[in-house]
Amino acid sequence: MSDTYPYPIARVGLIGGGQLGRMIVRAAKQLDCTTVVLDPVENSPAGQIATRQIVGGYHDASRIRELAADCDVLTFELENIDADTLAGLEAEGHPVHPSADVLKTIQDKLVQKQFLQDNGIPTSPFEAVERPSVEQFEAFGYPLVQKARRGGYDGRGVAVMKTAEAFDQNLPVPSLIERFVEAEKEIAILVARNPRGEVATYPAVEMCFRPGENVLDLLLAPADIDTATQAEAEAIAVKTVEALQGVGIFGVEMFVQRNGEVLVNEIAPRTHNSGHHTIEANVTDQFEQHLRAILGLPLGSTEALSPAAMLNLLGAPGESGRPVLRGLEEALAIPGVCLHLYGKATTSPFRKMGHITILDHDTATAKAKAMRVRDTIEIGAEETP
Amino acid sequence: MSDTYPYPIARVGLIGGGQLGRMIVRAAKQLDCTTVVLDPVENSPAGQIATRQIVGGYHDASRIRELAADCDVLTFELENIDADTLAGLEAEGHPVHPSADVLKTIQDKLVQKQFLQDNGIPTSPFEAVERPSVEQFEAFGYPLVQKARRGGYDGRGVAVMKTAEAFDQNLPVPSLIERFVEAEKEIAILVARNPRGEVATYPAVEMCFRPGENVLDLLLAPADIDTATQAEAEAIAVKTVEALQGVGIFGVEMFVQRNGEVLVNEIAPRTHNSGHHTIEANVTDQFEQHLRAILGLPLGSTEALSPAAMLNLLGAPGESGRPVLRGLEEALAIPGVCLHLYGKATTSPFRKMGHITILDHDTATAKAKAMRVRDTIEIGAEETP
Repeated sequence: MSDTYPYPIARVGLIGGGQLGRMIVRAAKQLDCTTVVLDPVENSPAGQIATRQIVGGYHDASRIRELAADCDVLTFELENIDADTLAGLEAEGHPVHPSADVLKTIQDKLVQKQFLQDNGIPTSPFEAVERPSVEQFEAFGYPLVQKARRGGYDGRGVAVMKTAEAFDQNLPVPSLIERFVEAEKEIAILVARNPRGEVATYPAVEMCFRPGENVLDLLLAPADIDTATQAEAEAIAVKTVEALQGVGIFGVEMFVQRNGEVLVNEIAPRTHNSGHHTIEANVTDQFEQHLRAILGLPLGSTEALSPAAMLNLLGAPGESGRPVLRGLEEALAIPGVCLHLYGKATTSPFRKMGHITILDHDTATAKAKAMRVRDTIEIGAEETP
Repeated sequence: MSDTYPYPIARVGLIGGGQLGRMIVRAAKQLDCTTVVLDPVENSPAGQIATRQIVGGYHDASRIRELAADCDVLTFELENIDADTLAGLEAEGHPVHPSADVLKTIQDKLVQKQFLQDNGIPTSPFEAVERPSVEQFEAFGYPLVQKARRGGYDGRGVAVMKTAEAFDQNLPVPSLIERFVEAEKEIAILVARNPRGEVATYPAVEMCFRPGENVLDLLLAPADIDTATQAEAEAIAVKTVEALQGVGIFGVEMFVQRNGEVLVNEIAPRTHNSGHHTIEANVTDQFEQHLRAILGLPLGSTEALSPAAMLNLLGAPGESGRPVLRGLEEALAIPGVCLHLYGKATTSPFRKMGHITILDHDTATAKAKAMRVRDTIEIGAEETP
């Protein structure tokens, strides 16, 4: 019988041991997959709960090979990893999902933009930048956004310049500049695709960023957009992942402009902060969906069971060290509050220490509760005696 | 500030490393509690994913003491454990939830019945049995159910006797006999209670047993009962847990008779098979709720997000050994199917190897899908070469 699986179903190798990895491991256990995590930090959030952790860097070819040798399929929770080694492993027959090619396309933000453009996927106008110059930026015109080609994350590697006066904030690295989009809303759609080409999309969510920090602060599901915009955004997100021939889950971040037009901002070739609420709010969460996709299993239902708001719990400003939770009881007393902590041994300002999902009958109430939670709970550091 | 918690929030000691324990550990990780599991089988389902497992028996006083020494609070996932040692630990100031007293009341089915009677909680008539005799059973009258006072589980330790001819199936142990209840439905209500006396109940679920085996086969949430019966059952379940002064989560199993009258069948002082669907179908699942209760945190919302059916995945008859899953892809292709595997290293006939929750817009559709799943997926054993 072809539809017969061993037990455990598969051995999953995961590059990256942060919170996304932790939630992948959690889903893997439910499906009885074993997991080996590669992360430089011993006892990483994912490593703590995985079958085993290999301590090593994301660019350490020999450690990545060690991981591959022990696993049926390789995947990752972040994109700043050694894609060449993954390409070599693929060539030797090791399944890697998403593929090294997809990863390479996305790792380099300039290549990613070109890919979008080449495939007729709407995105803002852009130009390659070898070395920032007043002239080039001026000729391209403000307002603009400069993005480092590699290594950006959570707002690092991005400079928003509204006017020419901001030029001295430029990033002195290989980069691109793109038109700053005056977005009505920023939304994201998660798209899963398995090796047979089956695709499943989650309802669009609305992302709210803390001004000036560019770290996702509050998320609302579903996004407050009309059905036509939802349909357009979904079609664009699916087209993007199909053009990539991506396998796994992808977070497609988009701008909705005042005129209703949708532009792709960036693609995340992995589980995404904008999908944390799917753990409680959708039939199949993004982490299990990713595993279903990379294991070649049928994709699960993405149906939303409830509106939701999601709040990242960031380390309090000015506090570093062993974490303490203030206001925990008060926050948990709010009906619909679901707490997720990541098991990080130390906190620092704005570090992602956990998240809270709030389920309610409408997003407005969920959002109001999220605001209360944000004023209530705080992750600070123990006072050093 | 009083509402300040360390990180991890607490160290939870768990007696029993089966699937219920596994799902408690999973919830504990989300709240960033560490867990130490005591179980006689190395690499038990819960031990595999806990911070640490102590290998030892449920009645091994020294191992239970070792567990207590390492944890802030003790709890359990099964009731056939050493209650005297737990009582001793409580006397020494170790928090144990539910308490040793509650455990002792429930462990002995005769004491449990007497407790129900003494507290005016409706339950079927019963009598203590020192040693089964034709005369006593005849005088009590058939149909009856004989239950061993101790150690019964999943239908073991229970003999249903419709007529006097069945007397030779009697259990030759200290026991009780009770009136066989011609139930219209068997339902269960989960009740959580924290040390401050806050109580939360889940909507009643309907339990369907496989004829002759007494293992929960299929569960439907919500139960198909009218609001008056739901309200009566809920009031009885709450009264039961309050009479016990129980802390933690309790599964109160009840019979609904043809005339609508509700009788308590048995109390489980722990997370319960009838609450597995709460992982997907309710805002707060029973496992997190149990932790919130025993840690003295506010209880979470028990609201149902979706109707659900739950199916235990039992080891196929006639097959023992290393498990294989047949029909996995076909089952996962059914929308709304959520798979949970327990990581057990060997299967045997009717062993609980996992469960499947099916979410759908109504219980009838969910049930129909559950029937399809039951015909589709099978956990058998690898053929020995």
